[in-house]
Amino acid sequence: MNLKQHLDYLFNPRSVAVIGASNAFGKWGFGIFRLLITKGGRDVYPVNRHESEVLGVKAYSSVTEIPAPVDCAVIVVPSPETPAAMEDCVRKGVRTVVLISGGFAETGDEGVKTQREVVEIARRGGIRFVGPNCMGHFNAHVDFYTTPFVPSVKKGPVALISQSGNSGASIVHSGWKVGLGFSKFVSAGNEADLHFEDYLEYLAEDDETKVILGYVEGFRDGRRFFELAREITRKKPIVIMKAARTEAGAGAARSHTAALAGSDLVVDAAFKQCGVIRVEEISELIDMALALLGQPLPRGKKVGVVSMGGGLGVVAADAIKRQGLDLPPLSPSTMEKLNARMSSRWSHGNPVDPGGDMVSYHSLWPLIEDNNIDITMIIGGFGMVGLLDDLVGAVNMATDEVDKMLQAAQGEELKNLDITIELMKKYQKPVVFTTMVSDAVSRGAVYDKLEQNYLTPCATPEMSAKVLAHLVRYSEYMGILKENP
Amino acid sequence: MNLKQHLDYLFNPRSVAVIGASNAFGKWGFGIFRLLITKGGRDVYPVNRHESEVLGVKAYSSVTEIPAPVDCAVIVVPSPETPAAMEDCVRKGVRTVVLISGGFAETGDEGVKTQREVVEIARRGGIRFVGPNCMGHFNAHVDFYTTPFVPSVKKGPVALISQSGNSGASIVHSGWKVGLGFSKFVSAGNEADLHFEDYLEYLAEDDETKVILGYVEGFRDGRRFFELAREITRKKPIVIMKAARTEAGAGAARSHTAALAGSDLVVDAAFKQCGVIRVEEISELIDMALALLGQPLPRGKKVGVVSMGGGLGVVAADAIKRQGLDLPPLSPSTMEKLNARMSSRWSHGNPVDPGGDMVSYHSLWPLIEDNNIDITMIIGGFGMVGLLDDLVGAVNMATDEVDKMLQAAQGEELKNLDITIELMKKYQKPVVFTTMVSDAVSRGAVYDKLEQNYLTPCATPEMSAKVLAHLVRYSEYMGILKENP
Repeated sequence: MNLKQHLDYLFNPRSVAVIGASNAFGKWGFGIFRLLITKGGRDVYPVNRHESEVLGVKAYSSVTEIPAPVDCAVIVVPSPETPAAMEDCVRKGVRTVVLISGGFAETGDEGVKTQREVVEIARRGGIRFVGPNCMGHFNAHVDFYTTPFVPSVKKGPVALISQSGNSGASIVHSGWKVGLGFSKFVSAGNEADLHFEDYLEYLAEDDETKVILGYVEGFRDGRRFFELAREITRKKPIVIMKAARTEAGAGAARSHTAALAGSDLVVDAAFKQCGVIRVEEISELIDMALALLGQPLPRGKKVGVVSMGGGLGVVAADAIKRQGLDLPPLSPSTMEKLNARMSSRWSHGNPVDPGGDMVSYHSLWPLIEDNNIDITMIIGGFGMVGLLDDLVGAVNMATDEVDKMLQAAQGEELKNLDITIELMKKYQKPVVFTTMVSDAVSRGAVYDKLEQNYLTPCATPEMSAKVLAHLVRYSEYMGILKENP
Repeated sequence: MNLKQHLDYLFNPRSVAVIGASNAFGKWGFGIFRLLITKGGRDVYPVNRHESEVLGVKAYSSVTEIPAPVDCAVIVVPSPETPAAMEDCVRKGVRTVVLISGGFAETGDEGVKTQREVVEIARRGGIRFVGPNCMGHFNAHVDFYTTPFVPSVKKGPVALISQSGNSGASIVHSGWKVGLGFSKFVSAGNEADLHFEDYLEYLAEDDETKVILGYVEGFRDGRRFFELAREITRKKPIVIMKAARTEAGAGAARSHTAALAGSDLVVDAAFKQCGVIRVEEISELIDMALALLGQPLPRGKKVGVVSMGGGLGVVAADAIKRQGLDLPPLSPSTMEKLNARMSSRWSHGNPVDPGGDMVSYHSLWPLIEDNNIDITMIIGGFGMVGLLDDLVGAVNMATDEVDKMLQAAQGEELKNLDITIELMKKYQKPVVFTTMVSDAVSRGAVYDKLEQNYLTPCATPEMSAKVLAHLVRYSEYMGILKENP
């Protein structure tokens, strides 16, 4: 069997055994087995040497006793018992294993020995496996989950390979909060057998995956990563949060997943060469995935800003310059259009600040149409609806009249948002939304439409500028942004 | 009248007039007047030349016609009408004015002239005023608000002076989301009369204010700021987000509030000398205020980390080193205690990662007690409750048994949190919580208790490390942290 076939079994097995399935609440073998039977969709068999049933399902004392084929086994027994469990899987003809248990190479010499032993057994038996010392994996599109600690997952086009289960869970959950959906996830653990590079190779060909995210502490096979990434980034963007940047971080990584971090500068240079987008924190990973899905790649790096309130405009201007982007003056025809659409109090320049009035889409569109602007950033609540909500909240009004006004404003907003999305496509120019007000007050139909179009607002002007700088560099890498004018 | 007396009238007037109060929904004169009559607590008079009533309250065509003393007037009429309105206030004997209207120095020569005129009238009449071009102010402790766009405010010990109304509103709202309460707020606007420095001087003596926050684009009187700050920071911390750091930001600031930004390096050096804590973004401002209220000042910069999951430990280790803090090895006695309390899978070092088990307070306390550790960072969900919540969510369980377990776990957690807070006081060591999982899943009694003690978790290990580095530097400035060992 080749890698693709193995990983097909891993991500969509017909049947699964949980070796170490448990009736004890709080145990991994409880959480994972409970999750599998709750989700349904495939045959699930508990393996437990001491119990005849687990959560009401007949249990087997060994995987070999299951009276049907087993495509995938999840192993959660303590590390000293894993070689025997893996032997049983070989004997049973299991195709692929998720080895959750810890206590291997990350804990020292004894663990290294056990890990080596398990690898040898699997190799001999033709089993490819995830882990050990991991938090499982999922394929959201077929509702198959071996990760008990991910509270909510939205189905979508983003895959995640994480060398930390916990960081991985945080990334998936952060995505869920802003409407970012996932296709596949794997917590790679110690990577005793399957490596980051194997998953990457597989996901490159996965039609359900449009963007690949990674949380990495160290590459086991840097050369292969580099060569794969160079190919893949031409058709699918790869965004990686590479941790273990300092000596202290690298030390922690060794005891975490026995990863070797490598020089941070070398990583930077290699990522740049092979078009991998490197981010520094989880929220940046999420916002970058959204931008790659929702934004056209920019033709240049000149940013126009529309800001509700001058202060956020100042913060945005700072952030744009610090990220190496440009903030050009507005062209005379844009100035004219804006003069016609705004009160004389507007800032008369870039950033565009209406000067106490509400930000409207009408002051955004001239920027998108301006030949001298490649990207637009809109900041601090957009349009009427958010503001009306705020106002209503502040003055405790909830009359029918206000409701009617809100409804009308919302209809208008939705229409304007449609026009904006069309303009983005027509001119191939990104429009990045940014908000610093509560997500609570801005939820509603407008927010939903933004979310559906991967236009969920970034939290701060700084993050918007970071994301745009990444987009600009990726566009340059792709040969779309031709030069720095 | 001296400055203090004027500002006492500003922050707690017995009576208020709104010049430009309006029946038109969406207008500033509507929002502010509606807010004032809704909150109640003092006499409020609408002034409107064309209406006999505003929102059902008898209106006056001039402030001079109000048949009672007026301590404070809020002016929202267009800028060309403001000199006459200010004249009326002088004639009426108004003590203090909040000049909301825009269209002054921020818009060019004509506006500069009007602004000068208004200042002269106010000076002549002994009126001190806020603005123009501002978003009002509030005193939460007496429920007095002239800021219509701040949806929710919690009363508390933090004051905010903001040279941007919009940024100010975002800061107050961000604070509300994490339980940070405010005493007083002022949107300083163009600072034609009252300056940042005036508010600072006043707040230094305000018993309801324990921490002073500022959003600043440029100081009108840098020398006075410096001298005031040097005195104040010895007894009350000052935290400032100084925007307009780049040329582009400075340009935007000029057209925003006509502020002159000054050299960013000079600002850095001056802040350092006078003990002002400089932050870069709004979330940092909020987290820093929480830390100053909830944490003892550290005696050193050696950080111990307890992390749920190794990946977040790696990220934390990186962040700690990059912020110039230390990550020392654990002392033998701490290792012993942890060996006794955790499974053999734990990381056996700093960061402490239980290796798949839940993080418990029992693995936190030995770090607080360790002589070689000054600060503890706990990361990624704390204790049982969050995890059980997650687990229950993931497996769709909601049985009585689970409820009972959750209740018991919660009781245990609350007790352990009390012990932790006592240990923090006893050893005078900060314990900073950090979480990367949803705030939704972790809400509840434990979260509430954290919030009440200003221990609301930072969102990321990076932010926790930044906050700790600020605390360490402030502690050094205060002579509490003696030297770098």
